[in-house]
Amino acid sequence: MKLQLALDMLDVNGALSVIEHTFDYIDIVELGTPLIKCVGLKNLIPEIKNNFPDKTILADLKTMDVGRYESDMAFDLGADIVTVLGTADIATIQGAKDSAVSHNKQVLVDMIAVKDLPALAKKIEAIAVDYIGIHSGIDQQQQGMTPLKALQSVRKIVQIPMAVAGGITLDTIDSIIAEEPETIIVGGAITSSDSPALVAKQMWERIQIG
Amino acid sequence: MKLQLALDMLDVNGALSVIEHTFDYIDIVELGTPLIKCVGLKNLIPEIKNNFPDKTILADLKTMDVGRYESDMAFDLGADIVTVLGTADIATIQGAKDSAVSHNKQVLVDMIAVKDLPALAKKIEAIAVDYIGIHSGIDQQQQGMTPLKALQSVRKIVQIPMAVAGGITLDTIDSIIAEEPETIIVGGAITSSDSPALVAKQMWERIQIG
Repeated sequence: MKLQLALDMLDVNGALSVIEHTFDYIDIVELGTPLIKCVGLKNLIPEIKNNFPDKTILADLKTMDVGRYESDMAFDLGADIVTVLGTADIATIQGAKDSAVSHNKQVLVDMIAVKDLPALAKKIEAIAVDYIGIHSGIDQQQQGMTPLKALQSVRKIVQIPMAVAGGITLDTIDSIIAEEPETIIVGGAITSSDSPALVAKQMWERIQIG
Repeated sequence: MKLQLALDMLDVNGALSVIEHTFDYIDIVELGTPLIKCVGLKNLIPEIKNNFPDKTILADLKTMDVGRYESDMAFDLGADIVTVLGTADIATIQGAKDSAVSHNKQVLVDMIAVKDLPALAKKIEAIAVDYIGIHSGIDQQQQGMTPLKALQSVRKIVQIPMAVAGGITLDTIDSIIAEEPETIIVGGAITSSDSPALVAKQMWERIQIG
């Protein structure tokens, strides 16, 4: 099981600082969507690769159109994993997958705000995407949504490795670990903590035990 | 009726060059989603504002989460209009709208890949968003989709000003003009033309007559 750190700030220096403090405990560095849109992958990926050459980089593109074009751009700049939206046209998801295959990289389908989760899970399993992202967005968390139930229902249906995101904290991580996803994604609980290193370490330890 | 130029390339200089050539005929400069993700709004908006201070700038964020956070970021950097996805949670659309109101700017809801167009059109009319974007994506155009039918059906249902996008060319623009949208969005037909200035001029003339 892997721990993915979602960089939810808007500045490169802030991002680099959190990675530095949590380095030993995180497996995947996620460039958050607002960070990408503010700073640009062109300016982010080389900076992170220079400082932390061995970390896996996920570009949270949340692609909604031109699946191949956007994924090609991110992979060419050095991303290891890209995301595409589950609510996109299936051709867009297929385009992102095709790009991943031709770059020998990976694609995650972000199921945020997908209405018929089981039906789409089946469809994207047929496309053989690398990960299915079970994700309650921040705007959804504020309405009380959590990803746990969706995770439990979808894992019975498909065999795609799962990545889970949505307000996961030290209080809730054990219930997620129990479902044995491939990746647990944490943002604010680490980045907005007074001690990102300590929270990341504690989460990492729970994952090792779990 | 306005003409919006969608910048679908990945480099700032290419973007500046097309704006320069088409300047007299376009009302709104759209920073395309892949361009934003590659270069970053922080590096795009000041550059365009310095060179073309009077053009309206639309940041095609295609926001899927943190509607307020992403829109705030783009407006703070100088965008005049942002886009949010129709497939996002309604709270995300509301967040983008709230941000627009507090910045005295505007928001467009991009209806790309929305399944129940009439129902969502009604919902976003209640939120009083500034524009509804009727949009066949590039991955959808390759399956033969065009935005004309959706435009015709939605305009009967709601009073929101409409922006239309989806492979519009000199061959199809008259059928779109006939529906009297607020904005016609053109990308590749101008940017990939041998003479962007000539195509933009001809489209502008059609709009004046239409």
